[in-house]
Amino acid sequence: MNRIYNPERTTWPELLQRPTRTIGDIEAMVKEIFREVKDKGDRAVLKYTSLFDGVSPGSMVVTPAEIEAAGGMVSGELKEAIALARTNIEKFHAAQKTGRVTVTTTDGITCWQEKKPIQKIGLYIPGGTAPLFSTVLMLAVPAAIAGCGEIVLCSPPDKQGNIHPAILYTAGLCGVNRILKVGGIQAVAGMTFGTESIPQVYKIFGPGNQYVTVAKQLATQYGVAIDMPAGPSELLVLADDSADAGFVASDLLSQAEHGKDSQVLLVSTSKDLIDAVEKELEQQMEALPRKDIAEAAIGNSKLIYVQDKEDALELVNSYGPEHLIICSAEEGFYVEGIVNAGSVFIGNYTPESAGDYASGTNHTLPTNGYARNYSGVNLDSFTKSVTFQKITEEGIRHIGNAIELMADAEGLQAHKNAVTLRLNRLENKK
Amino acid sequence: MNRIYNPERTTWPELLQRPTRTIGDIEAMVKEIFREVKDKGDRAVLKYTSLFDGVSPGSMVVTPAEIEAAGGMVSGELKEAIALARTNIEKFHAAQKTGRVTVTTTDGITCWQEKKPIQKIGLYIPGGTAPLFSTVLMLAVPAAIAGCGEIVLCSPPDKQGNIHPAILYTAGLCGVNRILKVGGIQAVAGMTFGTESIPQVYKIFGPGNQYVTVAKQLATQYGVAIDMPAGPSELLVLADDSADAGFVASDLLSQAEHGKDSQVLLVSTSKDLIDAVEKELEQQMEALPRKDIAEAAIGNSKLIYVQDKEDALELVNSYGPEHLIICSAEEGFYVEGIVNAGSVFIGNYTPESAGDYASGTNHTLPTNGYARNYSGVNLDSFTKSVTFQKITEEGIRHIGNAIELMADAEGLQAHKNAVTLRLNRLENKK
Repeated sequence: MNRIYNPERTTWPELLQRPTRTIGDIEAMVKEIFREVKDKGDRAVLKYTSLFDGVSPGSMVVTPAEIEAAGGMVSGELKEAIALARTNIEKFHAAQKTGRVTVTTTDGITCWQEKKPIQKIGLYIPGGTAPLFSTVLMLAVPAAIAGCGEIVLCSPPDKQGNIHPAILYTAGLCGVNRILKVGGIQAVAGMTFGTESIPQVYKIFGPGNQYVTVAKQLATQYGVAIDMPAGPSELLVLADDSADAGFVASDLLSQAEHGKDSQVLLVSTSKDLIDAVEKELEQQMEALPRKDIAEAAIGNSKLIYVQDKEDALELVNSYGPEHLIICSAEEGFYVEGIVNAGSVFIGNYTPESAGDYASGTNHTLPTNGYARNYSGVNLDSFTKSVTFQKITEEGIRHIGNAIELMADAEGLQAHKNAVTLRLNRLENKK
Repeated sequence: MNRIYNPERTTWPELLQRPTRTIGDIEAMVKEIFREVKDKGDRAVLKYTSLFDGVSPGSMVVTPAEIEAAGGMVSGELKEAIALARTNIEKFHAAQKTGRVTVTTTDGITCWQEKKPIQKIGLYIPGGTAPLFSTVLMLAVPAAIAGCGEIVLCSPPDKQGNIHPAILYTAGLCGVNRILKVGGIQAVAGMTFGTESIPQVYKIFGPGNQYVTVAKQLATQYGVAIDMPAGPSELLVLADDSADAGFVASDLLSQAEHGKDSQVLLVSTSKDLIDAVEKELEQQMEALPRKDIAEAAIGNSKLIYVQDKEDALELVNSYGPEHLIICSAEEGFYVEGIVNAGSVFIGNYTPESAGDYASGTNHTLPTNGYARNYSGVNLDSFTKSVTFQKITEEGIRHIGNAIELMADAEGLQAHKNAVTLRLNRLENKK
């Protein structure tokens, strides 16, 4: 791993740079598939499923019988684990509910704000090596709490034309309304435009490879919202001598195994800890089935020593990590000062994988420095805020003149006139 | 105006279509200006200011002396109006603050959510015919409440190289840190990359013409967030015989004067009201200084009669108007059922212009049907949500096994290992 001791502030931007993915020429292909799906619907979707996934499922729509059968293929103990995770995720996201906010800003003027559920949402769950049923929990559970009426889930079929049973089981459990055996660009295009089988949705959530990422970006140009821009997963561990080097190494590796482009950083005020973590990393890596991936990601990663805690905190806020683990005797100082991070894990017994699965927080988080300006997925991601106001005759008397003056100064005479007409009516009423 | 009586449901999508703007070849130009500003900083910004605004201001940065001088050019009564509006906007947005949400999801597992301010934000305020100092209030007031540390404002200079005094005065009043005489694409590019004079920001807010709209879209590809996608302004009035036809017409015109591509709709269960409103529209329009604009917008607009209130409500939710006025004896039914709208104005004495200026609600709202999936600007627009968790030895004992099972089922061995190591340690401790 790369070691950097007391980096100069001028080198921070380079030091904290993420490994970049080249998106290159994907965009033209994505646009073409969008055009085809828009024009030809299911026919185009099936064509690309056959082309990219090498399979032609009889029907894209998963039947209730298939969901039931999937339940039989999931072990009892995994079901219990899923139930526990679901309960915790439910508790944490239900607590995020906000009631109506009502304010009488001036006598006779009542303004209020209400959250309304987004009525149709789409969840994208990748296929491939890791069947991410945990992501189904992270998206479908808060969607149900928010009251989203229609929850659609797309996931690519395997070579046998099936979706992994754990994904189907979890989707069924969490009230997903329609599950489709469709992946990649064609899934995102289908949910953007709607096809015979795929319902059109208003917002698309979920992770995916670079094709899905570009497709989600393109979907926003057709009026669909997305959860957040995507990037490779990342973890920053902020630790001192109070940390357990073995635990730190295991956390770094748990992030590194996600993908070769994942990035993990250790920032420490202890050179001894850095040495110990490096040793542990080498040992633990050997035993991993995804060793190749982890090794490549560790190659992108850095062990950074800084002399004092103020610098450490500023470095972390400059980076804005998706996941931040704090194992430090100064934990209070750091927790207080963190502004830019997706999710923060505090103490030696708080591994990042707890938040990935079962503690209750959401694991769909801003990567790539987006923690500076985007929230992780939370209950509000499934709602939008609508404001209301009701003004009485008394109320318009209080603020009518101010509106007239401001509208006049902005040169918007009709805006002024809408108030003048009302004030005149009230004048005549007297 | 176009009249439509009892439209068939199958015709709704066409009926509710917005007038489209063609963005055409702007994109290439926007990309080129971005590249230049990224490479050459201020030099490129000044070049395009000279080219597009026809002026070369000595310095882009507005000085404290200029702000003070601007204050002298704003009348005392307009200052009072601005102060009143500011107070109401402050009250309504301060009430939207949410505290820390803390949940013990399982014994020994504490999760919490906190809103953190976005540290650097940029406000774009258009120049041109209407100096939108009201938009400064709508963006800078909640930004200050949220605690955004750095608030930058860009607005194009006029032919004399100045920004309108009401904009400068309001920006000074609301704690904007830096004001720049820069408009259009070059302003958005400057805030995206940062230049010698223009600070780089994390999120850009504010309205603008189609050039600014495309520039904001492009900014998101460079990691900058934006408030929402933009479109022409619009108003839907839902009214029955309890409405005042003169008031309704004045509201429709206040929206219509915004731009030739604005859209106004009247949906009514009363043919008499439709007749009366049309008459009032013709009369009131004559007196408007922006008559040409209003007339063109009214040309895009529709008077729609529907027989019953259920259809009316569904029609409104299908359209998802930016502004919705409800003047109806059935107001409770409609208010209860509205899901898709940016901001809702209830009753005969609640003109939309109240919310544009002074009632306290925000006027930066989703257009173009985006009310289905986007919030209007509110306090949370200036923050992001960060989650935290702390797990004790007891806590990891409770959920450790579930995490191991789920990680194993997803094929993520290192995720499992991070927990196994900790559970083993606790086992040995016994």
